[in-house]
Amino acid sequence: MKYGRFDQQGRIFYGRVEGDSVVELDGSPFDTFRVTTKRHALASLKTLLPCVPGNFYCAGLNYLAHIEWGNARKGTNKKPPEKADVGYRSNNALIGTGETIVIPADSPGPVQYEGELVAVIGKKARNLTEADALSCVLGYTLGNDVSDRGWQASDRTLWRAKNCDTWKPMGPFITTGLDPMNLTVSVNVNGEQAAEYTTDKMLFSAQHYIAEITSYMTLWPGDVIWLGTDNATLPDLKHGDVCEIVQKDIGVLRNPVVRAGA
Amino acid sequence: MKYGRFDQQGRIFYGRVEGDSVVELDGSPFDTFRVTTKRHALASLKTLLPCVPGNFYCAGLNYLAHIEWGNARKGTNKKPPEKADVGYRSNNALIGTGETIVIPADSPGPVQYEGELVAVIGKKARNLTEADALSCVLGYTLGNDVSDRGWQASDRTLWRAKNCDTWKPMGPFITTGLDPMNLTVSVNVNGEQAAEYTTDKMLFSAQHYIAEITSYMTLWPGDVIWLGTDNATLPDLKHGDVCEIVQKDIGVLRNPVVRAGA
Repeated sequence: MKYGRFDQQGRIFYGRVEGDSVVELDGSPFDTFRVTTKRHALASLKTLLPCVPGNFYCAGLNYLAHIEWGNARKGTNKKPPEKADVGYRSNNALIGTGETIVIPADSPGPVQYEGELVAVIGKKARNLTEADALSCVLGYTLGNDVSDRGWQASDRTLWRAKNCDTWKPMGPFITTGLDPMNLTVSVNVNGEQAAEYTTDKMLFSAQHYIAEITSYMTLWPGDVIWLGTDNATLPDLKHGDVCEIVQKDIGVLRNPVVRAGA
Repeated sequence: MKYGRFDQQGRIFYGRVEGDSVVELDGSPFDTFRVTTKRHALASLKTLLPCVPGNFYCAGLNYLAHIEWGNARKGTNKKPPEKADVGYRSNNALIGTGETIVIPADSPGPVQYEGELVAVIGKKARNLTEADALSCVLGYTLGNDVSDRGWQASDRTLWRAKNCDTWKPMGPFITTGLDPMNLTVSVNVNGEQAAEYTTDKMLFSAQHYIAEITSYMTLWPGDVIWLGTDNATLPDLKHGDVCEIVQKDIGVLRNPVVRAGA
């Protein structure tokens, strides 16, 4: 099943995506809903951000080849994390598919994409085991963890390195029934494949992250966990580019890039 | 003016606190509202968390004496931050006044309070100057940035050092018209004053934080910025304690402490 959130001339609703059409829901997949008889052409609707999370978690470093590539690029010697210590991003930065990534005029850059798998929580959960962890997941979507590598090096926190307005595209849909540890995520820049990786290479699995988080924290419907990215994240993003994060069962998260004042 | 959010036998509303009574509002101070003629005894209502933020910002280290005390305690040599790089906390951890701070059974400790002034945003804002920064603030409340110093030292991020469920008490009320740089915040543990500081010692002012944030990020109504704490944060919190954060115009944020399984 593939869920999305849609805007039809200002009216906002959740829907079930079936091929090129959307069956309108009365209610939301995060709560209770009724499937209506209203069917729309997908192309006639604006696809919105699929949810606004109450808590926005991210794995940060969760793939070895991405860490090694970062070390080679920066001459650093960052070790792979020893534990699944979760990080945070902030809602101000979220945009949906089709919306524009804006690079601030004073961004030192380089600005790079990070294509990520995102677990979307559907049920309140606490103290789950790894065996039960996926029981609280509604489904999976895609995220682009847009990052300014200059600010990432110069700032004490990741605030503007990761959380400038528009720097967290997420979507397009939430797909249920996937195995989060057996997916292929790819990235296109201007229509050409720039990166591809498989989620079986996660250092800490989706199950492990969820079990760890729920040892201390309640997961709530709509919370999201961004699960990290692998490999190099090149080419750098620049004014006029279009960046797509792609997974065949979830869809294409497509965002144009502009530089403010360019 | 002092605003609060209240529960009267399951009915939730915003109100204006006037001495020992609450005048019910129809609507919210974050949007539009009408002052009703309904008046309640404050003691007859449950005071709730004053807002659920869309974005939860914190200054982290923002007072010199607290940094120096931390260095002396831990034998570290942490420098004061050179810039107002903002950090994040997470909504799962928020509780209102009167609710219980729960220390997980496996918390290595010590667990300590941090009494903080909190700026509560009332209006959407972007690109404010320091001179205009406070124009987006609805008012100020109090926060207790409960922290496990063991996890703070051992973990890559502050996830469970700062964000365990119940570890972010906030409230009781939001008071308008205060000068955030000229307030006295104090902390009582079991009825005895444990700490006191004045907000004029902030390394970076509320105005500066807001101006910096809005250079890159939109502030939204209900967003909060926790502005840091000064001095030592002793005694350590333990099972059976009651911790109060106090500011005379805002009120008393009072939370009992228990240890899970104790």
